[in-house]
Amino acid sequence: MAEFRHDPGHRRWVIVSTDRQRGPGDYNIPARPYDEGVCPFCERQEGRTPAEIYAVRGGTPPDKPGWKLRVFPNKYPMLATDESEIQRGAMGVYDWINGVGAHEIIVEHPQHYVLFHQFGVDHLTEVIRAWRLRLNALKEDGRFRYIMIFKNHGESAGASINHQHSQLLAMPVIPRIAAMALSTAREHFHTKERCLFCDLLDQELADGSRIVAKNEHFACYIPYASRFPFEMAILPVAHSHDFAALGDELLRPAAEIIDQAMRRLAALFGDLPFNLTIHTGPNTGKSPRRAGYWSSLKYDWHWQIEIIPRLAATHGFEWSTGLYINPTPPEKAAECLRQVKI
Amino acid sequence: MAEFRHDPGHRRWVIVSTDRQRGPGDYNIPARPYDEGVCPFCERQEGRTPAEIYAVRGGTPPDKPGWKLRVFPNKYPMLATDESEIQRGAMGVYDWINGVGAHEIIVEHPQHYVLFHQFGVDHLTEVIRAWRLRLNALKEDGRFRYIMIFKNHGESAGASINHQHSQLLAMPVIPRIAAMALSTAREHFHTKERCLFCDLLDQELADGSRIVAKNEHFACYIPYASRFPFEMAILPVAHSHDFAALGDELLRPAAEIIDQAMRRLAALFGDLPFNLTIHTGPNTGKSPRRAGYWSSLKYDWHWQIEIIPRLAATHGFEWSTGLYINPTPPEKAAECLRQVKI
Repeated sequence: MAEFRHDPGHRRWVIVSTDRQRGPGDYNIPARPYDEGVCPFCERQEGRTPAEIYAVRGGTPPDKPGWKLRVFPNKYPMLATDESEIQRGAMGVYDWINGVGAHEIIVEHPQHYVLFHQFGVDHLTEVIRAWRLRLNALKEDGRFRYIMIFKNHGESAGASINHQHSQLLAMPVIPRIAAMALSTAREHFHTKERCLFCDLLDQELADGSRIVAKNEHFACYIPYASRFPFEMAILPVAHSHDFAALGDELLRPAAEIIDQAMRRLAALFGDLPFNLTIHTGPNTGKSPRRAGYWSSLKYDWHWQIEIIPRLAATHGFEWSTGLYINPTPPEKAAECLRQVKI
Repeated sequence: MAEFRHDPGHRRWVIVSTDRQRGPGDYNIPARPYDEGVCPFCERQEGRTPAEIYAVRGGTPPDKPGWKLRVFPNKYPMLATDESEIQRGAMGVYDWINGVGAHEIIVEHPQHYVLFHQFGVDHLTEVIRAWRLRLNALKEDGRFRYIMIFKNHGESAGASINHQHSQLLAMPVIPRIAAMALSTAREHFHTKERCLFCDLLDQELADGSRIVAKNEHFACYIPYASRFPFEMAILPVAHSHDFAALGDELLRPAAEIIDQAMRRLAALFGDLPFNLTIHTGPNTGKSPRRAGYWSSLKYDWHWQIEIIPRLAATHGFEWSTGLYINPTPPEKAAECLRQVKI
């Protein structure tokens, strides 16, 4: 009928259907609106965005055509991106911090209709290099405790613009799910002197039933207690807490595993809405606060990429309870993704 | 610009917009499809549902017309509703429990087009009585650790049927958000010998700026760190951990506060999609397991109702980070709800 499965990183129980299973053909993918010609992220529309911070260009001047990838501040940032100091305060039982941060857009490709899974490994390598570069730059700012790199594709995944792009949000707090996973991993290491996610990866690689793809340096699998059908995790095989410290020799293998994951997903579902998030360790940066607290971070945390396809409607109670129902068993999802022709 | 606000019950930071605020007129409410005549929850369609467990009737026979409210098992339950024993096991780093539970439907009104905010206090009193009755009945089953009562209205809130109904889901685990709030409340009580939510309620009542409505026994307010615009919380003023223990004298005041909250919301937004969840204490029931652990429950927890209007699209990263952005400051939402004519 169904079983409860426990995710040891996030301490959550998920109901996984085991009899009334939904396969790839049972999901309806929402169409995306046609919007060519109105897109501020297209080549030759550079004047409609803030000035670029970084770009991959063949010698052309900034904010002009002739680029492969562009990074600029979000025109409508979620947080104030000025030089303000962080202010923290209490109000009775509550606490507040002023809304200071950074919010950047990485336009990943000059052409409007090229989708993420169509980038190819060379181009994806440049995207990953840009993520690493901007993360390293923002880590220098001691005000920021946490830096999220995420990508929304499709309206139901939160994207307001179709043109392939990712975002970077730096902030003075650690968001709740990240804080919880971090504290769980920390407790595991404290007890066992082993990384929780190394343990988990060992088990997944030995078992194999949830593995989607792997190469010498990375593995992609469907988490045992996935909340969403066809949800994927990508982890480096060698322990590392910090995506920003990714070595040059790992850029291409990282691109290869993302390419595998996305092309397999696209082979099953075509152009589907999804969220991709890089979960890297919190920023110890230049902030002296709690330096001792963060000193074990390099052992505790294991950076990872989370890919959530938006295939199924939610049940309504996820927001209030944290309970999820996944109608596609992870082993079945992994098998479909492994076997599909790409 | 924006500020981070911390929710002390759920240990989460929320970004609240303070300058680019969105008022009630800035939200688009999705329309619901027309579906009269095909609804299995309507009066005279009783043969299309499983046999009723409970009903409010004027002397008519079970599963026949002539009722005000009907409760029956969900025809398509999320969990196996048989007599199976709970089985628990580990699989390396993972844990599982067989998917046993109860899943009931409470059809709240015989007529298809009467909306929740139109029930009136007398009828709402019967709904609350039914919730209490079924909760008390299921608490007798020692297999169930947690019993959720929730209501989804509108497709974007997860409802597959428009006819007003709520659901009850009993399960052998405590869902993550509930577990986390409970452990936070427990820690607060352990440290301070006071209930966290009593403290919070005292502060809200004294401050007043986030109060939507109150009566002698209940208060409705917009949480300081609401994740969603116009999100509301309803708490009993006198400490109580258990909704199932609600006294007869509180049924009508509870109906009055829900009526106030829903009518005020409807006066601003009309027929809007929303989720309503009752967060009551976990079920200590007849299970001898961890009896000592649960013995402090009556001090730790404070039962509450959470109402989440589905007004705004999500940003995509909520699922992976637990970070939320609320474009309507709680104080502004409360003011709009207080001032609207009902």
